[in-house]
Amino acid sequence: MLIVQKYGGTSVGSPERIGKVADRIAKTIAKGHQVVVVVSAMGHSTDALVDLAAQVTENPDKREMDALLATGEQVSTALVSMALQKRGIQAKSFTGWQAAVQTEPVHGAARIETIDPQPLSDYLKENGVAVVAGFQGIAKGAVTTLGRGGSDTTAVAIAAALKADLCEIYTDVDGVYTADPRKVTGAYKLEQVSYDEMLELANLGSQVLHPRAVETAKRHQVALVVRSSFTDAEGTVVKDMTTMEGLRVVTGVAQEKEVARLAIVGVPPSSKPLTNMFRTLAKQNVNVDVIVQSILREEEVDVSFTVSEADLDRALELLEALKESLGYREIVHEKGLCKVSIVGAGMISNPGVAAQMFEALEAAGARVKMVSTSEIKVSCVIESSYLEAAINSVHASFLLDQE
Amino acid sequence: MLIVQKYGGTSVGSPERIGKVADRIAKTIAKGHQVVVVVSAMGHSTDALVDLAAQVTENPDKREMDALLATGEQVSTALVSMALQKRGIQAKSFTGWQAAVQTEPVHGAARIETIDPQPLSDYLKENGVAVVAGFQGIAKGAVTTLGRGGSDTTAVAIAAALKADLCEIYTDVDGVYTADPRKVTGAYKLEQVSYDEMLELANLGSQVLHPRAVETAKRHQVALVVRSSFTDAEGTVVKDMTTMEGLRVVTGVAQEKEVARLAIVGVPPSSKPLTNMFRTLAKQNVNVDVIVQSILREEEVDVSFTVSEADLDRALELLEALKESLGYREIVHEKGLCKVSIVGAGMISNPGVAAQMFEALEAAGARVKMVSTSEIKVSCVIESSYLEAAINSVHASFLLDQE
Repeated sequence: MLIVQKYGGTSVGSPERIGKVADRIAKTIAKGHQVVVVVSAMGHSTDALVDLAAQVTENPDKREMDALLATGEQVSTALVSMALQKRGIQAKSFTGWQAAVQTEPVHGAARIETIDPQPLSDYLKENGVAVVAGFQGIAKGAVTTLGRGGSDTTAVAIAAALKADLCEIYTDVDGVYTADPRKVTGAYKLEQVSYDEMLELANLGSQVLHPRAVETAKRHQVALVVRSSFTDAEGTVVKDMTTMEGLRVVTGVAQEKEVARLAIVGVPPSSKPLTNMFRTLAKQNVNVDVIVQSILREEEVDVSFTVSEADLDRALELLEALKESLGYREIVHEKGLCKVSIVGAGMISNPGVAAQMFEALEAAGARVKMVSTSEIKVSCVIESSYLEAAINSVHASFLLDQE
Repeated sequence: MLIVQKYGGTSVGSPERIGKVADRIAKTIAKGHQVVVVVSAMGHSTDALVDLAAQVTENPDKREMDALLATGEQVSTALVSMALQKRGIQAKSFTGWQAAVQTEPVHGAARIETIDPQPLSDYLKENGVAVVAGFQGIAKGAVTTLGRGGSDTTAVAIAAALKADLCEIYTDVDGVYTADPRKVTGAYKLEQVSYDEMLELANLGSQVLHPRAVETAKRHQVALVVRSSFTDAEGTVVKDMTTMEGLRVVTGVAQEKEVARLAIVGVPPSSKPLTNMFRTLAKQNVNVDVIVQSILREEEVDVSFTVSEADLDRALELLEALKESLGYREIVHEKGLCKVSIVGAGMISNPGVAAQMFEALEAAGARVKMVSTSEIKVSCVIESSYLEAAINSVHASFLLDQE
């Protein structure tokens, strides 16, 4: 098999851990597999670089920030290559440009456009282990970076370009859980999960895999495994729904904290100004989540939506500036909320799911303030003080008997 | 004027010092000059990277070592660019490959082969300040480094490629001195020195400029200035002898410590085995310096030469292994020596220089153990215990009245 293995910052956090990573790669090679490695920057080295830049200027140029941050992954690739060579394995480091990872020409959060498989597959033909810097690429001769979770995306994109049989994401947790095991009694590790479920779980704050990596995996049908670099435990397989043996109604319970709710009361019922409002918020990087619109009377509309608490003040300012064009009566807002969601591909054919979720939340004492549903997800906004009781109650209701 | 400014590791050793460097560049720009900047890695960051590699493997691959070390200069280029932008100056970082610094395809101590001036001159046309990573280049798609003093060489080579009017080397000393001012009473800073004198001084342990940088400057007739990044003092101009106003007989007194002497006694007078011996020593990286050969009797030859004390044991081992082929009678060796040299372009036409040097050494109580002379240099090997007295005596004899 051709396997792409991605090791995160914690996994390569010290020379000793880099040795452990090399041992694991050596073991994979010994089983007769071919391996391409993708690595992140060591531990907190990216933070240290960000801090250096902050000491030089309060407003660093994005191109230069990319040039600066890309060095972190380059250090890891060289050290992992050395560690492999020490173990008698032929290895070579590749920066983003050496691996021909072409991105769109933006800095800070560029998307990968193409990866020419030639440089890596040439080296595979020589039986070498290519150690590729994650998180970075090249565009118009400049070094670019992919933003948060970029190394996961690099690994998946390389697996797609090389038509690899498997992409293993090594991290500090041993897989995807039905809920946060530190918070929810009886949370257990999933053997498998579909791309769509993983996407919803990732978007809902379960930080195991970056959504963009999951999207890329889904688009190119790359078989993914999430597993721990510290244990030999089997991880969680992320794959296409069609290849799964049976769909659970609910796969996991996710949570999001520090949510604020805004309600714009008494807007005239024309969609133009509202579209304009959401566009303005997006442009100012205010991420709007659950949106609920209700028509109480013919002549006016109420619109509620959630933002992160950190964005609340900015959102209020922007809405104040738009008061005239929107023509609303007043704005109501509320902090101290959270969002509890259930995700499951089998939900589509099970109409009673939302009702069961409301019951479970009610049993925990929580009042549902907002609801939003998709084909494989139900999200409820409740008060933060009920969060822990709520996720435990929801998990017990949907998942404990499924293990 | 188009000026290339090179800042060493101490000059960019902290965010605060990087700010000072940016201030100095801004001042040069304000005078109406165009500037290309070449920077080294920050302070001891290269040592930190070497140390990381040592923790991973005792025998790091040279290609990977280059990939690792090159990140140090990349960090500096990004930070200096940011600091310039903060001061309203358009700036952009360039790695070795982005600046098209092509080297020979070896690792650890590659020579620059060509620099395509296009990328840098294109950016100069946009009135931007290019901030280039010193010490690194590219060969066959791999990152290479130039070895010790590499950033000086990068700066001079870029100045040559761009046909710059001046190359300023900023360092932590304010110029080239007649002798080490911490050791020699009355040592003073030189206003100017010729390439050849600088080459001899550099080779003799005066660490201000790397010999390879001086060689490159001489070959391309690049006007060099060595000056301090911490003061506004005028530095020392390094230029062609033909453009100097008057040649001093002696320009400087240099020293080299920890020298060992080897004498191979009673070698049959055929040059073949001796050539072979020096080739073997060179291959094993034993740097042979002063060589003295004397014919005492028709049928045999005595050969003495110096090596650094650190290389003595290895040299003895190698010579022992060659005993049969060389056919010598015995080897004598001596440690605890040093070398004192005088360098001066005016020496050629002054026959009494060597004699005056012997007198000065004798006055300091030192016995001359070996002598070697070139057209612009006289070197004497003496016992280390006389070093300080010797350089002071020689300096007083040749230089004090010239200031």
